[in-house]
Amino acid sequence: MSTLNTTLNVQLGERSYPIYIESGVLDDSVRLNRHIKGKQVVIISNTTVAPLYIERLLSGLDSSLKVSQVLLPDGEEHKTLANLEQIFDTALTDNHNRSTSFIALGGGVVGDMAGFAAASYQRGVHFIQIPTTLLAQVDSSVGGKTGVNHPLGKNMIGAFYQPQAVFIDPDVLDSLPAREYAAGLAEVIKYGLICDPAFYEWLHQHKDDFVARDKAVLSEAIKRSCAAKARVVAEDEREGGVRAILNLGHTFGHAIEAAQGYGSWLHGEAVAAGMVLAARLSASRGSITDNDVDRLIQWLEAMGLPTAPPEDMLISTWTQHMLRDKKVVDGRLRLVLLDEIGKACIFDDLPQAELESFLATFTPS
Amino acid sequence: MSTLNTTLNVQLGERSYPIYIESGVLDDSVRLNRHIKGKQVVIISNTTVAPLYIERLLSGLDSSLKVSQVLLPDGEEHKTLANLEQIFDTALTDNHNRSTSFIALGGGVVGDMAGFAAASYQRGVHFIQIPTTLLAQVDSSVGGKTGVNHPLGKNMIGAFYQPQAVFIDPDVLDSLPAREYAAGLAEVIKYGLICDPAFYEWLHQHKDDFVARDKAVLSEAIKRSCAAKARVVAEDEREGGVRAILNLGHTFGHAIEAAQGYGSWLHGEAVAAGMVLAARLSASRGSITDNDVDRLIQWLEAMGLPTAPPEDMLISTWTQHMLRDKKVVDGRLRLVLLDEIGKACIFDDLPQAELESFLATFTPS
Repeated sequence: MSTLNTTLNVQLGERSYPIYIESGVLDDSVRLNRHIKGKQVVIISNTTVAPLYIERLLSGLDSSLKVSQVLLPDGEEHKTLANLEQIFDTALTDNHNRSTSFIALGGGVVGDMAGFAAASYQRGVHFIQIPTTLLAQVDSSVGGKTGVNHPLGKNMIGAFYQPQAVFIDPDVLDSLPAREYAAGLAEVIKYGLICDPAFYEWLHQHKDDFVARDKAVLSEAIKRSCAAKARVVAEDEREGGVRAILNLGHTFGHAIEAAQGYGSWLHGEAVAAGMVLAARLSASRGSITDNDVDRLIQWLEAMGLPTAPPEDMLISTWTQHMLRDKKVVDGRLRLVLLDEIGKACIFDDLPQAELESFLATFTPS
Repeated sequence: MSTLNTTLNVQLGERSYPIYIESGVLDDSVRLNRHIKGKQVVIISNTTVAPLYIERLLSGLDSSLKVSQVLLPDGEEHKTLANLEQIFDTALTDNHNRSTSFIALGGGVVGDMAGFAAASYQRGVHFIQIPTTLLAQVDSSVGGKTGVNHPLGKNMIGAFYQPQAVFIDPDVLDSLPAREYAAGLAEVIKYGLICDPAFYEWLHQHKDDFVARDKAVLSEAIKRSCAAKARVVAEDEREGGVRAILNLGHTFGHAIEAAQGYGSWLHGEAVAAGMVLAARLSASRGSITDNDVDRLIQWLEAMGLPTAPPEDMLISTWTQHMLRDKKVVDGRLRLVLLDEIGKACIFDDLPQAELESFLATFTPS
């Protein structure tokens, strides 16, 4: 059992906040209550996570607080504007006012929806992230991207809205299903690929420890992932520039998710396949080697992740979804590619023909 | 015909923006195109306003822009999360990306919805306000409050999100129905009541000119109202303090609107009745005189505005809605009252019993 005990800070001026990474932090009542504003709390969770952890969270909350609960259905397909209303309904029915605090207890879907609800409820209330999946711990709970999906595109409706604090308890990963766990590893590997070659090598060396869910190795990976994310977000909160590198594999990945129907592929699975596509395209342009690509593919496969897109996606489906990507500027697609292993770049003049002939390799003719 | 030509500025650091008040500014192509970012525009209007003015607006837009239109149903009862989706559907179907600009052409409902849609679409795009009602010109288009209603409370879901610019053309008021016009005057009189005794007297002196819709007097009133609003918003953008005075009459008014069903009373009508209640309560506490109250009532009546709440509202209905007000903090209602004519104050220790016995005067026993 690890005794890792780390506090990172996301440096955003008056919107700065701590990330606590620690065994047992889920019911650390002192720190939890310090970040709650007012006398009311709405806990937003889902029907899978709540039975496992909500009692522990409740036990850590000050007994004088008035607590409401919203349990959302579990799964990316439920991350909709319609389901967001459940949160507003409960908060208003229970007379929560502008000094309430929303707490997200769950994975990326819960965190994104709770965050957007917090941004929008009475034009903004405090919120706290308690991520319970590896993906949410290393990625979505940090940085303030919140929102819901639209049938025509992922995360198309939302807000940049920072939490008051993020509580990461690596112990909760013990209960994570294998597919969800692997999906989170895809985002961990992404940090190595885009900005930290030493971390990439370290992760690769420990790949068997990840399969074994070694707690010390996992905690270290969470810490380094969050530190990388915090660094990038501090530099570019609203994705005017460098933050876009965090989307390596995501333009391809979001297209896969939307085309297959949300919830069919997990987000991290789509990102894994998307990262392989970005790596292949980078290799085809000569910036990394075919060996680099093969090594990445073997590694992701060993982790149980997909390394190719669904076989039935037509070119027209790809381009339709990719041209709705949030990184498109005035009709011009911006892709995150690799300059080298450990260094991403934003590429905005890929000829449409080159992209289509690249994608043709993976699609039915 | 007035030749008023004023530019005010809302001073909010990097979120500062101009308010243009000018005859014909609706199709001032130079200024309009200067505030549009990117190559795409979504015009959000409603089925009443669009037939009157959308062609003029379109004629002012650069012909190279790709323009989509969303026409919402007209009326407060349509200011819902469900109708907001129409805006996202159109923007996504037409492949609008993060560099698009949303333009609100209409009254307060259109402006509030378009603003919240702009705040949320791809986590935030540029937007421009072109208010076409008096109420929107003097109040809702300035200051960045955006949002939609919830069955349990007005404007409960939204964002603080500032426009790039506000274009106010007093000429469009010629087409405004009498009820809407009077509703706007209520908010104009409010500015005098809360922060400008000289303006209050000036308005009262010109009350017949307002009935006649004298363009010069009206333009001056719009200018002074916007200047007052801009000053208060610059001081307190997110309503941490002084901005709350802009809500004189609104806690009562929102309760009336929600209880009667949105769209039954116009917002400005509910605010007029609410201001009378606030004035009466202030008089009962000795801060203004009964004469002050009577003069206000006679004036509002002469403008065609209601000066008493609906007769069928029960005490329990009042308190239920008022306790959900956004200004409630930890169960404590904060009311805006008058220290004197021309000076509002925020009052947060009114005993519940005093409020209820005050409201009992107006409700069935």
